[in-house]
Amino acid sequence: MAPTGLWLIGARGSVATTAIAGLLALRSGVVRPVGCVSAQPAFERAPLPDWDEIRVGGHDVVDTPLEKRAEQLTESGLIPYRVFDTVRDRLSEVDSEVRPGYHPATHSGSQADAARAVSEDINAFARRHGLERVVVLNVSSTEPVFPSLAEHEGLAALEAAMAVPGRTVLPPSSVSAYAALRAGAAYVDFTPSPGIRLPALEELASRQAVPYAGSDGKTGETLVRSTLAPLFSSRSLAVRSWAGTNLLGGGDGLTLADAEHAGSKLASKGRGLSTLLGTEVTAPLHIDNVPDLGEQKIAWDHVSFEGFLGVRMSMQFTWSGYDSSLAAPLVLDLTRFTAAAHAAGRSGPLAPLAFFFKDPMGTDEHRLAQQFDMLTTWAESL
Amino acid sequence: MAPTGLWLIGARGSVATTAIAGLLALRSGVVRPVGCVSAQPAFERAPLPDWDEIRVGGHDVVDTPLEKRAEQLTESGLIPYRVFDTVRDRLSEVDSEVRPGYHPATHSGSQADAARAVSEDINAFARRHGLERVVVLNVSSTEPVFPSLAEHEGLAALEAAMAVPGRTVLPPSSVSAYAALRAGAAYVDFTPSPGIRLPALEELASRQAVPYAGSDGKTGETLVRSTLAPLFSSRSLAVRSWAGTNLLGGGDGLTLADAEHAGSKLASKGRGLSTLLGTEVTAPLHIDNVPDLGEQKIAWDHVSFEGFLGVRMSMQFTWSGYDSSLAAPLVLDLTRFTAAAHAAGRSGPLAPLAFFFKDPMGTDEHRLAQQFDMLTTWAESL
Amino acid sequence: MAPTGLWLIGARGSVATTAIAGLLALRSGVVRPVGCVSAQPAFERAPLPDWDEIRVGGHDVVDTPLEKRAEQLTESGLIPYRVFDTVRDRLSEVDSEVRPGYHPATHSGSQADAARAVSEDINAFARRHGLERVVVLNVSSTEPVFPSLAEHEGLAALEAAMAVPGRTVLPPSSVSAYAALRAGAAYVDFTPSPGIRLPALEELASRQAVPYAGSDGKTGETLVRSTLAPLFSSRSLAVRSWAGTNLLGGGDGLTLADAEHAGSKLASKGRGLSTLLGTEVTAPLHIDNVPDLGEQKIAWDHVSFEGFLGVRMSMQFTWSGYDSSLAAPLVLDLTRFTAAAHAAGRSGPLAPLAFFFKDPMGTDEHRLAQQFDMLTTWAESL
Amino acid sequence: MAPTGLWLIGARGSVATTAIAGLLALRSGVVRPVGCVSAQPAFERAPLPDWDEIRVGGHDVVDTPLEKRAEQLTESGLIPYRVFDTVRDRLSEVDSEVRPGYHPATHSGSQADAARAVSEDINAFARRHGLERVVVLNVSSTEPVFPSLAEHEGLAALEAAMAVPGRTVLPPSSVSAYAALRAGAAYVDFTPSPGIRLPALEELASRQAVPYAGSDGKTGETLVRSTLAPLFSSRSLAVRSWAGTNLLGGGDGLTLADAEHAGSKLASKGRGLSTLLGTEVTAPLHIDNVPDLGEQKIAWDHVSFEGFLGVRMSMQFTWSGYDSSLAAPLVLDLTRFTAAAHAAGRSGPLAPLAFFFKDPMGTDEHRLAQQFDMLTTWAESL
Repeated sequence: MAPTGLWLIGARGSVATTAIAGLLALRSGVVRPVGCVSAQPAFERAPLPDWDEIRVGGHDVVDTPLEKRAEQLTESGLIPYRVFDTVRDRLSEVDSEVRPGYHPATHSGSQADAARAVSEDINAFARRHGLERVVVLNVSSTEPVFPSLAEHEGLAALEAAMAVPGRTVLPPSSVSAYAALRAGAAYVDFTPSPGIRLPALEELASRQAVPYAGSDGKTGETLVRSTLAPLFSSRSLAVRSWAGTNLLGGGDGLTLADAEHAGSKLASKGRGLSTLLGTEVTAPLHIDNVPDLGEQKIAWDHVSFEGFLGVRMSMQFTWSGYDSSLAAPLVLDLTRFTAAAHAAGRSGPLAPLAFFFKDPMGTDEHRLAQQFDMLTTWAESL
Repeated sequence: MAPTGLWLIGARGSVATTAIAGLLALRSGVVRPVGCVSAQPAFERAPLPDWDEIRVGGHDVVDTPLEKRAEQLTESGLIPYRVFDTVRDRLSEVDSEVRPGYHPATHSGSQADAARAVSEDINAFARRHGLERVVVLNVSSTEPVFPSLAEHEGLAALEAAMAVPGRTVLPPSSVSAYAALRAGAAYVDFTPSPGIRLPALEELASRQAVPYAGSDGKTGETLVRSTLAPLFSSRSLAVRSWAGTNLLGGGDGLTLADAEHAGSKLASKGRGLSTLLGTEVTAPLHIDNVPDLGEQKIAWDHVSFEGFLGVRMSMQFTWSGYDSSLAAPLVLDLTRFTAAAHAAGRSGPLAPLAFFFKDPMGTDEHRLAQQFDMLTTWAESL
Repeated sequence: MAPTGLWLIGARGSVATTAIAGLLALRSGVVRPVGCVSAQPAFERAPLPDWDEIRVGGHDVVDTPLEKRAEQLTESGLIPYRVFDTVRDRLSEVDSEVRPGYHPATHSGSQADAARAVSEDINAFARRHGLERVVVLNVSSTEPVFPSLAEHEGLAALEAAMAVPGRTVLPPSSVSAYAALRAGAAYVDFTPSPGIRLPALEELASRQAVPYAGSDGKTGETLVRSTLAPLFSSRSLAVRSWAGTNLLGGGDGLTLADAEHAGSKLASKGRGLSTLLGTEVTAPLHIDNVPDLGEQKIAWDHVSFEGFLGVRMSMQFTWSGYDSSLAAPLVLDLTRFTAAAHAAGRSGPLAPLAFFFKDPMGTDEHRLAQQFDMLTTWAESL
Repeated sequence: MAPTGLWLIGARGSVATTAIAGLLALRSGVVRPVGCVSAQPAFERAPLPDWDEIRVGGHDVVDTPLEKRAEQLTESGLIPYRVFDTVRDRLSEVDSEVRPGYHPATHSGSQADAARAVSEDINAFARRHGLERVVVLNVSSTEPVFPSLAEHEGLAALEAAMAVPGRTVLPPSSVSAYAALRAGAAYVDFTPSPGIRLPALEELASRQAVPYAGSDGKTGETLVRSTLAPLFSSRSLAVRSWAGTNLLGGGDGLTLADAEHAGSKLASKGRGLSTLLGTEVTAPLHIDNVPDLGEQKIAWDHVSFEGFLGVRMSMQFTWSGYDSSLAAPLVLDLTRFTAAAHAAGRSGPLAPLAFFFKDPMGTDEHRLAQQFDMLTTWAESL
């Protein structure tokens, strides 16, 4: 079978580096697929590409090579030395497939030109490796909120605006999504950035008949919330408030704690909670940048609820994880599932992949157990 | 429609008192059915007895009348004053339906005699109120571990042994279960005591064609575990240890912290966890008696798990609830569902009620979300 | 001995109501002085006014009488019914000593007039009860940040500005402080509002030779921080970050979560931490309004620290208390200690009362144990 | 100045290995003395031996060389690679100073013979390095409870019993303590084992005029308790219960979770709490062995307390640390302080070192802040 391509936007970030190192390690058999949903027996019969049938390339705006990034993550404890030693040479090979990413600050022509260049990178990657298909997956930094424009509503208007030199009608994530679709690739957004979430781009996806999925990978506080909230609703316990605090180090902490950037993240976190509980509750939510935590991410939630005869009770949890360790295997899962969906002729938003996202496209189902059921049922149908 | 009877073993305990006061309050409309699963829209079309179609009586070995017990719970904050004021008079009426319970220490004849007396109390209760059917529900204190005897294996041998004066072949919970079955009543065990869990009694239940359910109401730590554990397994995260500490006040703390008594409780808690995770993990578990907590129950769990590439992460939660507030509405739910099952001609263990129990009979399904699905699907079939 | 007066600014708030109800209950002997520092054996020989030597009056801008407020707090669980029953009649007597408080929105004349009226209320209270001295204690809502003005720097300029009709040169807390000093009363600020913290008012206090203390009662997160932080510094463990989240219901939650109001509170919380640790650390801090918590106040802190050879470790705590229950006994303590200091001829800021405050006046000592030592040593000297 | 010797009982354990690697790293200047109390400015003028004036040797019953043990700890994240690289060669030198330790199971002669051999090892070490004095410090595994014997009451009777071939009159820790004293060395016990805590050995210490200190290093839950408990007592808040759970991996988890071994540890933890609170409280305490935690140690405590007017409140904390990282710098501190005390002619139990111990000898002061005051005052007197 011809190999499948994974083209990462943000290919040298922590998540991407961990995913790539992990893929190489899985291929060489030095690690077990812990954290990989698609490796469960439930998906054994689904036509997913194997670890050694996936080729990786991507875009990034930073230069630090993958090997160096992997070394840093090894020092942070995210990648064991044993794994790093095994995969370091092959990391350099993958790094040679990483191209300079699009960024409005460094780009001079029109966004149409920029998109064309991105598409061409993807196509060339596919040609070089004889790929059957490519999944473009965005793991770059969360973008600041981008204003809604009339041009986002239809493809024709959008393309006209993109052709105007110097005009920035799309945020970088959407330029990538546009380019992916133009290249006939499936698109997955692991971030809360706009990406493909514009009517004009959904129109293009539909025309190209490619599947897409997103958005905002569910790896910590929201993962726990989507598991716990159904406890309260199925037991008729009335949640009165659900407060959350997130402490993040790394680049993510810096990006997300910034008020403007946090806008999109907080919104995508909030949407789920009220859907899960079936009602609006007091739900203060904070994301703080705590650099000394490094790759660690700590979430504390306090749930206050009312039980029989109005008695007040509470629950609190602390989740202490490593963001990239939680996200990386899902990147591989999403690549496998999306490629299989594409191969099976599916197009449009892949609602059955809601299991992976804070803000799933194509469905309002936020309950983790139901999402997992949707995933397994769907995978059997492929 | 003829009313349904609820006969409580341990009718003057905290759980029973809260359930009775709550039922009376629901009937008078002064409270909303928060915590009552059966009051959800999902069960609107199920043929469940209404709040005012349920008559309550029971057995207890203590004398303190229900009104006095309710007053104590009001002081503890479990019953609001407003509710207590509304229901106090009717509590006395219910209290007049409570008979002295069976206890081996105060009973002189054979266990067959004891069982006959219990059955007769149940039958008389049914006649007095013109009841269609009765659900016998055990909310008495958890019993010490009772030895397995050969006589438990078959009904004939058991009844022969029960007929021997002075011989204690069954623990009190099983005497009650036997008597309930003999009276043609359905039986529910909200405690981890043996109750109906003996082959001889299951044989009798089958012969009587009555349904039964249990055991050990799921109201705290295990409720959360059965919600959270599937997060880890569905995400392929490898749980390495799951430690738990339970602080209980009230009589329950005293009973359960006692090593021998705790035997049955710890076992029923442990069974679920390994089933949920699909593997045995290090899972130290403690139940401590902390009298100053009164009716409060606090559980702390620490989960250590391994993610992608072997990275270690953790989660902890603290659940702070009031045991009787959590259990009481489920007592009412179980009465309604079990009565409806009996009316619909169901018999044997009611696996679809697994949602309510730590150690469900008739199924190995411990995942809360799946249990809720089972419950709603089944209720539609009634 | 002639009685001592306690004049409360915010006399019908939760803290004041609890303090007054508690004082009456202590006087009648129905409760033990739990939470009262001054009742410890260590202070037995200090010349503190007894519970029955304290008379209470005050100002408030709200009308709800004390008895009604106490009833509400009884329903919230802050005052036991037994205590409420015992003291309700005497609460009405105290309520008759509460006068309408000063508020710029409802006052038409000059602030000098306003201050004169406040002073006169205090003096009349002293005359009515034959008081030896009065302690004016501010427990009103935290004020928004008030701009610094040149007139705050000296008494003469301030009084000239106060005489201008319609000019608001002082926030309400400082008008009260000014009036207290003019009436020859000691002043204590239990809030982070400006109060007496202006050079002009300190000049007046010095001229009047009265003692004063503040500010911002230490009752929760900061209390724990001032206890825990010395653990890290005395053990040479390097704190890298100390994040905090505060969930508050009640009026306080609403006032403090408001960005502008929180300004003063967050500042007073932050000042202590860096002093305690001897260095600046990343210390994100939030105060959220969670109305369903009512009088409850929950703080979660996460401390990340570095140990030997750079190893990273962490500690977290959750404090779950009732603000008014924690503050009220300290109000009584501060009244007793401040009155005794006044009687002993002390004047100026009472640094030895730092034990009670987040942002102590007259000292930079924030460590709780050292503050307690200062208090006991000083009390012996009175 | 002549160097000082540190003779470690359990010289190849995790604590000892970390302490030795750390000492070598401090000497070479590649790390800062984080976690080292004695490196604070407050002790700058105390006559403590410098890092490069300390020579290390010891006993152990295991063979794994220090370099190998340090490598394991490096893999566990307790020692940074950089540090390991710097010190590995010198670890082998230290390892050559480690002699086979005494263990009753492998020793055939009398305990007098065994003690003589231990003393001789210490003396030879002192001669080889021209040491001024030696501190013998016990960091070996906690021993099972040893029965009290009449021979422990006086030195003459003890020595007579020790001379009987094949008789085990002392646990290994006490044989080491005896041998240390006979060699004229100071003795410090970092474990809860009996060690020097027998009247006969205290008699010998007094005769030899050497100082000693202990016992049971305070590095986690008890450290926090001795900091927090004074908060409650100084604020007159009535603690009603204080429950604790400890999760330990590593060898310590295995040793301490064992019921018999835990005996001594739980007793030494419990003694402090009631002294700190001035009253007995319900205080269930557990130590669980959770192997997957490795060197990590997690403690959860729940404190329930009563405030003004009987209101119930609570606090909980989670301490997540690495045992050896917390203990190792204290081993170095104790060596420095004890050696300085010996040099200054102090003998008997060193109460001012209570700051370091769960169960301090020579004082009942358990409050951390007061212990730190005692330490700094005493150090100035040296």
